[in-house]
Amino acid sequence: METNQLSQQIQFILEIDKLKLILRQTLLTDSSRRENTAEHSWHIAVMAIVLAEYAPPGTDIGRVIKMLLVHDLVEIDAGDTFCYDVQGYLSKASREVEAANRLFGMLPTQQEQELRMLWDEFEEQSTQDAKFAAALDRIQPFLHNQKTEGGTWRIHGISREQVMKRMAPVETGAPKLWAFILQLIDDCVASGYLS
Amino acid sequence: METNQLSQQIQFILEIDKLKLILRQTLLTDSSRRENTAEHSWHIAVMAIVLAEYAPPGTDIGRVIKMLLVHDLVEIDAGDTFCYDVQGYLSKASREVEAANRLFGMLPTQQEQELRMLWDEFEEQSTQDAKFAAALDRIQPFLHNQKTEGGTWRIHGISREQVMKRMAPVETGAPKLWAFILQLIDDCVASGYLS
Repeated sequence: METNQLSQQIQFILEIDKLKLILRQTLLTDSSRRENTAEHSWHIAVMAIVLAEYAPPGTDIGRVIKMLLVHDLVEIDAGDTFCYDVQGYLSKASREVEAANRLFGMLPTQQEQELRMLWDEFEEQSTQDAKFAAALDRIQPFLHNQKTEGGTWRIHGISREQVMKRMAPVETGAPKLWAFILQLIDDCVASGYLS
Repeated sequence: METNQLSQQIQFILEIDKLKLILRQTLLTDSSRRENTAEHSWHIAVMAIVLAEYAPPGTDIGRVIKMLLVHDLVEIDAGDTFCYDVQGYLSKASREVEAANRLFGMLPTQQEQELRMLWDEFEEQSTQDAKFAAALDRIQPFLHNQKTEGGTWRIHGISREQVMKRMAPVETGAPKLWAFILQLIDDCVASGYLS
Protein backbone atom coordinates (compact mmCIF):
# COMPACT_ATOMS: atom_id res chain seq x y z
CA MET A 1 0.00 0.00 0.00
CA GLU A 2 2.80 2.39 0.89
CA THR A 3 4.68 1.34 -2.26
CA ASN A 4 1.55 2.10 -4.22
CA GLN A 5 1.37 5.54 -2.63
CA LEU A 6 4.98 6.33 -3.55
CA SER A 7 4.42 4.99 -7.02
CA GLN A 8 1.48 7.38 -7.52
CA GLN A 9 3.60 10.27 -6.31
CA ILE A 10 6.46 9.41 -8.66
CA GLN A 11 4.04 9.20 -11.60
CA PHE A 12 2.75 12.65 -10.69
CA ILE A 13 6.30 14.01 -10.47
CA LEU A 14 7.07 12.66 -13.94
CA GLU A 15 3.76 13.94 -15.34
CA ILE A 16 4.28 17.53 -14.22
CA ASP A 17 7.51 17.67 -16.24
CA LYS A 18 5.14 18.58 -19.09
CA LEU A 19 4.67 22.04 -17.62
CA LYS A 20 8.12 22.85 -19.06
CA LEU A 21 6.61 22.51 -22.53
CA ILE A 22 3.79 25.02 -21.99
CA LEU A 23 4.80 28.33 -23.53
CA ARG A 24 3.49 31.62 -22.20
CA GLN A 25 3.27 34.88 -24.13
CA THR A 26 5.91 36.45 -21.87
CA LEU A 27 9.41 36.80 -23.28
CA LEU A 28 12.56 36.17 -21.26
CA THR A 29 14.21 39.45 -20.27
CA ASP A 30 16.79 39.06 -23.06
CA SER A 31 13.91 38.59 -25.55
CA SER A 32 15.55 35.39 -26.83
CA ARG A 33 12.44 33.23 -26.48
CA ARG A 34 9.07 32.82 -24.79
CA GLU A 35 8.97 31.72 -21.20
CA ASN A 36 7.51 28.38 -20.19
CA THR A 37 5.17 27.94 -17.26
CA ALA A 38 7.52 25.82 -15.13
CA GLU A 39 10.25 28.45 -15.10
CA HIS A 40 7.63 31.17 -14.58
CA SER A 41 6.40 29.26 -11.51
CA TRP A 42 9.95 29.09 -10.17
CA HIS A 43 10.46 32.81 -10.74
CA ILE A 44 7.34 33.91 -8.86
CA ALA A 45 8.13 31.51 -5.99
CA VAL A 46 11.53 33.18 -5.58
CA MET A 47 9.78 36.56 -5.80
CA ALA A 48 7.63 35.52 -2.84
CA ILE A 49 10.81 35.03 -0.81
CA VAL A 50 12.43 38.28 -1.97
CA LEU A 51 9.32 40.48 -1.68
CA ALA A 52 7.92 38.88 1.50
CA GLU A 53 8.33 42.10 3.49
CA TYR A 54 5.72 43.83 1.28
CA ALA A 55 3.04 41.22 2.01
CA PRO A 56 0.18 42.44 4.20
CA PRO A 57 0.43 41.43 7.88
CA GLY A 58 -0.71 37.88 8.46
CA THR A 59 0.34 36.57 5.05
CA ASP A 60 1.84 33.07 5.32
CA ILE A 61 4.73 33.19 2.84
CA GLY A 62 5.31 29.43 3.07
CA ARG A 63 1.75 28.82 1.89
CA VAL A 64 2.08 31.49 -0.80
CA ILE A 65 5.18 29.74 -2.15
CA LYS A 66 3.44 26.35 -2.27
CA MET A 67 0.42 27.92 -3.95
CA LEU A 68 2.59 29.60 -6.58
CA LEU A 69 4.47 26.37 -7.28
CA VAL A 70 1.31 24.41 -8.08
CA HIS A 71 -1.23 27.02 -9.24
CA ASP A 72 -0.36 26.72 -12.95
CA LEU A 73 -0.09 22.91 -13.15
CA VAL A 74 -3.50 22.79 -14.83
CA GLU A 75 -1.92 24.39 -17.90
CA ILE A 76 -0.45 20.95 -18.71
CA ASP A 77 -3.92 20.05 -20.01
CA ALA A 78 -5.61 23.42 -20.40
CA GLY A 79 -2.71 25.34 -21.94
CA ASP A 80 -1.75 28.90 -21.13
CA THR A 81 -4.54 31.36 -21.91
CA PHE A 82 -3.16 34.76 -22.93
CA CYS A 83 -4.44 37.24 -20.37
CA TYR A 84 -5.85 39.60 -23.02
CA ASP A 85 -7.56 36.78 -24.98
CA VAL A 86 -11.29 37.44 -24.33
CA GLN A 87 -12.49 34.36 -26.24
CA GLY A 88 -10.01 32.05 -24.56
CA TYR A 89 -11.11 33.23 -21.14
CA LEU A 90 -14.69 32.08 -21.77
CA SER A 91 -13.69 28.41 -21.64
CA LYS A 92 -10.65 28.81 -19.37
CA ALA A 93 -12.37 27.98 -16.08
CA SER A 94 -13.99 24.74 -17.20
CA ARG A 95 -10.87 23.54 -19.01
CA GLU A 96 -8.80 24.18 -15.90
CA VAL A 97 -11.20 22.42 -13.54
CA GLU A 98 -11.03 19.30 -15.69
CA ALA A 99 -7.25 19.53 -15.67
CA ALA A 100 -7.19 19.93 -11.90
CA ASN A 101 -9.40 16.86 -11.51
CA ARG A 102 -7.08 14.75 -13.63
CA LEU A 103 -3.70 16.01 -12.39
CA PHE A 104 -4.29 16.30 -8.65
CA GLY A 105 -6.32 13.08 -8.95
CA MET A 106 -3.08 11.24 -9.75
CA LEU A 107 -1.98 11.72 -6.14
CA PRO A 108 -2.96 9.77 -3.01
CA THR A 109 -6.31 11.11 -1.73
CA GLN A 110 -5.08 13.18 1.20
CA GLN A 111 -2.42 14.86 -0.90
CA GLU A 112 -4.84 15.39 -3.76
CA GLN A 113 -7.08 17.29 -1.37
CA GLU A 114 -4.21 19.33 0.05
CA LEU A 115 -2.95 20.52 -3.35
CA ARG A 116 -6.43 20.92 -4.77
CA MET A 117 -7.35 23.19 -1.87
CA LEU A 118 -4.31 25.36 -2.60
CA TRP A 119 -5.32 25.55 -6.26
CA ASP A 120 -8.97 26.32 -5.43
CA GLU A 121 -7.86 28.96 -2.97
CA PHE A 122 -5.75 30.69 -5.61
CA GLU A 123 -8.61 30.57 -8.10
CA GLU A 124 -11.18 31.87 -5.63
CA GLN A 125 -8.97 34.76 -4.48
CA SER A 126 -10.73 34.88 -1.15
CA THR A 127 -7.74 34.79 1.21
CA GLN A 128 -4.84 37.16 1.83
CA ASP A 129 -2.35 34.43 0.84
CA ALA A 130 -4.10 33.91 -2.51
CA LYS A 131 -4.26 37.65 -3.14
CA PHE A 132 -0.58 38.20 -2.45
CA ALA A 133 0.25 35.20 -4.67
CA ALA A 134 -1.88 36.65 -7.47
CA ALA A 135 -0.15 40.02 -7.15
CA LEU A 136 3.26 38.36 -7.68
CA ASP A 137 1.86 36.37 -10.59
CA ARG A 138 0.93 39.68 -12.25
CA ILE A 139 4.10 41.57 -11.37
CA GLN A 140 6.52 39.07 -12.93
CA PRO A 141 5.33 39.29 -16.57
CA PHE A 142 4.86 43.04 -16.07
CA LEU A 143 8.54 43.39 -15.15
CA HIS A 144 9.49 41.30 -18.19
CA ASN A 145 7.41 43.50 -20.48
CA GLN A 146 9.02 46.61 -19.05
CA LYS A 147 12.52 45.10 -19.36
CA THR A 148 11.93 43.99 -22.96
CA GLU A 149 10.78 47.50 -23.94
CA GLY A 150 7.17 46.53 -24.28
CA GLY A 151 7.66 42.86 -25.23
CA THR A 152 4.26 41.20 -25.38
CA TRP A 153 2.42 44.54 -25.10
CA ARG A 154 3.87 45.78 -28.37
CA ILE A 155 3.28 42.49 -30.18
CA HIS A 156 -0.40 42.56 -29.25
CA GLY A 157 -0.93 46.35 -29.16
CA ILE A 158 -1.89 46.42 -25.48
CA SER A 159 -3.01 49.73 -23.95
CA ARG A 160 -2.31 51.38 -20.62
CA GLU A 161 -5.96 50.84 -19.71
CA GLN A 162 -5.70 47.09 -20.28
CA VAL A 163 -2.55 46.87 -18.19
CA MET A 164 -4.10 48.92 -15.38
CA LYS A 165 -6.99 46.46 -15.26
CA ARG A 166 -4.65 43.48 -15.41
CA MET A 167 -2.51 44.85 -12.58
CA ALA A 168 -5.42 45.73 -10.27
CA PRO A 169 -4.85 42.61 -8.09
CA VAL A 170 -1.56 44.19 -6.98
CA GLU A 171 -3.44 47.06 -5.35
CA THR A 172 -5.57 44.54 -3.45
CA GLY A 173 -3.01 41.82 -2.72
CA ALA A 174 0.20 43.79 -2.27
CA PRO A 175 -0.81 47.41 -1.60
CA LYS A 176 2.72 48.30 -0.49
CA LEU A 177 3.90 47.62 -4.05
CA TRP A 178 1.12 49.52 -5.80
CA ALA A 179 2.78 52.95 -5.94
CA PHE A 180 5.87 51.34 -7.46
CA ILE A 181 3.76 49.60 -10.13
CA LEU A 182 1.85 52.78 -10.98
CA GLN A 183 5.13 54.62 -11.44
CA LEU A 184 6.44 51.86 -13.72
CA ILE A 185 3.26 51.96 -15.81
CA ASP A 186 3.74 55.72 -16.25
CA ASP A 187 7.36 55.13 -17.24
CA CYS A 188 6.29 52.49 -19.78
CA VAL A 189 3.76 54.85 -21.36
CA ALA A 190 6.34 57.67 -21.44
CA SER A 191 8.82 55.31 -23.14
CA GLY A 192 6.23 54.27 -25.73
CA TYR A 193 6.17 50.63 -24.55
CA LEU A 194 2.42 50.91 -23.96
CA SER A 195 -0.11 52.65 -26.18
CA MET B 1 15.86 54.39 1.49
CA GLU B 2 12.93 52.01 1.24
CA THR B 3 12.59 52.78 -2.48
CA ASN B 4 16.26 51.93 -2.86
CA GLN B 5 15.69 48.59 -1.09
CA LEU B 6 12.81 47.68 -3.40
CA SER B 7 14.83 48.79 -6.41
CA GLN B 8 17.65 46.41 -5.41
CA GLN B 9 15.17 43.58 -5.02
CA ILE B 10 13.61 44.23 -8.43
CA GLN B 11 17.05 44.27 -10.05
CA PHE B 12 17.78 40.90 -8.42
CA ILE B 13 14.44 39.50 -9.65
CA LEU B 14 15.25 40.59 -13.20
CA GLU B 15 18.82 39.27 -12.95
CA ILE B 16 17.82 35.76 -11.90
CA ASP B 17 15.75 35.42 -15.08
CA LYS B 18 19.09 34.35 -16.58
CA LEU B 19 18.83 30.99 -14.80
CA LYS B 20 16.32 30.02 -17.50
CA LEU B 21 19.17 30.14 -20.01
CA ILE B 22 21.44 27.73 -18.14
CA LEU B 23 21.14 24.29 -19.70
CA ARG B 24 21.71 21.13 -17.70
CA GLN B 25 22.66 17.74 -19.09
CA THR B 26 19.28 16.29 -18.08
CA LEU B 27 16.71 15.79 -20.82
CA LEU B 28 13.03 16.50 -20.37
CA THR B 29 11.06 13.28 -19.95
CA ASP B 30 9.91 13.42 -23.61
CA SER B 31 13.60 13.74 -24.66
CA SER B 32 12.71 16.84 -26.74
CA ARG B 33 15.40 19.06 -25.27
CA ARG B 34 17.74 19.65 -22.34
CA GLU B 35 16.31 21.01 -19.14
CA ASN B 36 17.25 24.44 -17.86
CA THR B 37 18.12 25.14 -14.24
CA ALA B 38 15.12 27.37 -13.48
CA GLU B 39 12.60 24.70 -14.42
CA HIS B 40 14.71 22.07 -12.63
CA SER B 41 14.54 24.22 -9.48
CA TRP B 42 10.76 24.44 -9.80
CA HIS B 43 10.49 20.68 -10.25
CA ILE B 44 12.48 19.78 -7.15
CA ALA B 45 10.59 22.36 -5.07
CA VAL B 46 7.30 20.67 -6.03
CA MET B 47 8.93 17.32 -5.23
CA ALA B 48 9.63 18.61 -1.72
CA ILE B 49 5.89 19.19 -1.29
CA VAL B 50 4.88 15.84 -2.78
CA LEU B 51 7.52 13.72 -1.03
CA ALA B 52 7.45 15.58 2.31
CA GLU B 53 6.19 12.50 4.17
CA TYR B 54 9.45 10.66 3.42
CA ALA B 55 11.61 13.36 5.03
CA PRO B 56 13.26 12.36 8.31
CA PRO B 57 11.47 13.63 11.43
CA GLY B 58 12.32 17.25 12.19
CA THR B 59 12.84 18.26 8.57
CA ASP B 60 11.42 21.75 7.92
CA ILE B 61 9.87 21.41 4.45
CA GLY B 62 9.31 25.15 4.16
CA ARG B 63 13.05 25.74 4.55
CA VAL B 64 13.84 22.87 2.19
CA ILE B 65 11.65 24.47 -0.49
CA LYS B 66 13.33 27.87 -0.11
CA MET B 67 16.75 26.22 -0.22
CA LEU B 68 15.88 24.32 -3.39
CA LEU B 69 14.53 27.46 -5.07
CA VAL B 70 17.77 29.40 -4.58
CA HIS B 71 20.52 26.77 -4.36
CA ASP B 72 21.30 26.77 -8.08
CA LEU B 73 21.21 30.54 -8.68
CA VAL B 74 25.01 30.58 -8.75
CA GLU B 75 24.87 28.74 -12.06
CA ILE B 76 23.95 32.08 -13.67
CA ASP B 77 27.65 32.95 -13.44
CA ALA B 78 29.28 29.58 -12.80
CA GLY B 79 27.30 27.50 -15.30
CA ASP B 80 26.03 24.00 -14.70
CA THR B 81 28.82 21.52 -14.04
CA PHE B 82 27.96 18.04 -15.29
CA CYS B 83 27.99 15.78 -12.26
CA TYR B 84 30.35 13.26 -13.86
CA ASP B 85 32.79 15.95 -15.10
CA VAL B 86 35.85 15.42 -12.88
CA GLN B 87 37.80 18.37 -14.32
CA GLY B 88 34.86 20.75 -14.03
CA TYR B 89 34.39 19.83 -10.39
CA LEU B 90 37.92 20.98 -9.53
CA SER B 91 37.02 24.64 -10.09
CA LYS B 92 33.31 24.36 -9.32
CA ALA B 93 33.47 25.47 -5.69
CA SER B 94 35.48 28.64 -6.26
CA ARG B 95 33.44 29.66 -9.30
CA GLU B 96 30.24 29.22 -7.34
CA VAL B 97 31.44 31.18 -4.31
CA GLU B 98 32.24 34.15 -6.56
CA ALA B 99 28.81 33.84 -8.14
CA ALA B 100 27.13 33.72 -4.73
CA ASN B 101 29.03 36.85 -3.67
CA ARG B 102 27.87 38.75 -6.71
CA LEU B 103 24.27 37.55 -6.95
CA PHE B 104 23.20 37.54 -3.31
CA GLY B 105 25.23 40.76 -2.96
CA MET B 106 22.68 42.48 -5.19
CA LEU B 107 20.13 42.25 -2.37
CA PRO B 108 19.70 44.42 0.73
CA THR B 109 22.15 43.26 3.40
CA GLN B 110 19.76 41.38 5.68
CA GLN B 111 18.22 39.51 2.77
CA GLU B 112 21.62 38.81 1.27
CA GLN B 113 22.61 37.12 4.51
CA GLU B 114 19.37 35.15 4.72
CA LEU B 115 19.64 33.69 1.21
CA ARG B 116 23.40 33.26 1.45
CA MET B 117 22.97 31.22 4.62
CA LEU B 118 20.49 28.96 2.83
CA TRP B 119 22.96 28.51 -0.02
CA ASP B 120 25.89 27.88 2.34
CA GLU B 121 23.80 25.38 4.28
CA PHE B 122 22.99 23.43 1.13
CA GLU B 123 26.64 23.44 0.09
CA GLU B 124 27.89 22.35 3.51
CA GLN B 125 25.34 19.54 3.82
CA SER B 126 25.52 19.67 7.59
CA THR B 127 21.81 19.90 8.44
CA GLN B 128 18.89 17.53 7.93
CA ASP B 129 17.10 20.13 5.78
CA ALA B 130 20.11 20.43 3.47
CA LYS B 131 20.47 16.66 3.25
CA PHE B 132 16.84 16.11 2.33
CA ALA B 133 17.09 18.92 -0.24
CA ALA B 134 20.18 17.30 -1.76
CA ALA B 135 18.42 13.93 -1.95
CA LEU B 136 15.59 15.48 -4.01
CA ASP B 137 18.13 17.28 -6.19
CA ARG B 138 19.63 13.87 -7.03
CA ILE B 139 16.35 12.00 -7.45
CA GLN B 140 14.86 14.34 -10.08
CA PRO B 141 17.50 13.87 -12.83
CA PHE B 142 17.65 10.18 -11.91
CA LEU B 143 13.92 9.82 -12.63
CA HIS B 144 14.40 11.66 -15.92
CA ASN B 145 17.22 9.34 -16.93
CA GLN B 146 15.09 6.33 -16.10
CA LYS B 147 12.09 7.74 -17.98
CA THR B 148 14.18 8.59 -21.07
CA GLU B 149 15.57 5.04 -21.20
CA GLY B 150 19.01 6.02 -20.04
CA GLY B 151 19.03 9.62 -21.37
CA THR B 152 22.20 11.32 -20.18
CA TRP B 153 23.70 8.05 -18.90
CA ARG B 154 23.75 6.54 -22.37
CA ILE B 155 25.12 9.71 -24.00
CA HIS B 156 28.05 9.75 -21.57
CA GLY B 157 28.43 6.00 -20.97
CA ILE B 158 27.72 6.21 -17.25
CA SER B 159 28.01 3.05 -15.15
CA ARG B 160 25.95 1.64 -12.32
CA GLU B 161 28.86 2.30 -9.98
CA GLN B 162 28.93 6.00 -10.89
CA VAL B 163 25.18 6.31 -10.37
CA MET B 164 25.37 4.50 -7.02
CA LYS B 165 27.97 7.01 -5.85
CA ARG B 166 25.95 9.93 -7.22
CA MET B 167 22.79 8.75 -5.48
CA ALA B 168 24.43 8.08 -2.09
CA PRO B 169 23.02 11.33 -0.60
CA VAL B 170 19.55 9.81 -0.88
CA GLU B 171 20.52 7.09 1.60
CA THR B 172 21.67 9.79 4.04
CA GLY B 173 19.08 12.51 3.41
CA ALA B 174 15.96 10.52 2.58
CA PRO B 175 16.53 6.98 3.89
CA LYS B 176 12.84 6.12 3.44
CA LEU B 177 13.31 6.51 -0.32
CA TRP B 178 16.54 4.53 -0.57
CA ALA B 179 15.05 1.08 -1.15
CA PHE B 180 12.93 2.51 -3.96
CA ILE B 181 15.98 4.10 -5.58
CA LEU B 182 18.03 0.88 -5.29
CA GLN B 183 15.22 -1.02 -6.97
CA LEU B 184 15.06 1.53 -9.81
CA ILE B 185 18.83 1.32 -10.31
CA ASP B 186 18.53 -2.46 -10.64
CA ASP B 187 15.69 -2.01 -13.12
CA CYS B 188 17.76 0.45 -15.15
CA VAL B 189 20.69 -1.97 -15.31
CA ALA B 190 18.34 -4.83 -16.29
CA SER B 191 16.86 -2.67 -19.06
CA GLY B 192 20.32 -1.76 -20.35
CA TYR B 193 19.95 1.94 -19.54
CA LEU B 194 23.07 1.78 -17.39
CA SER B 195 26.28 -0.07 -18.16
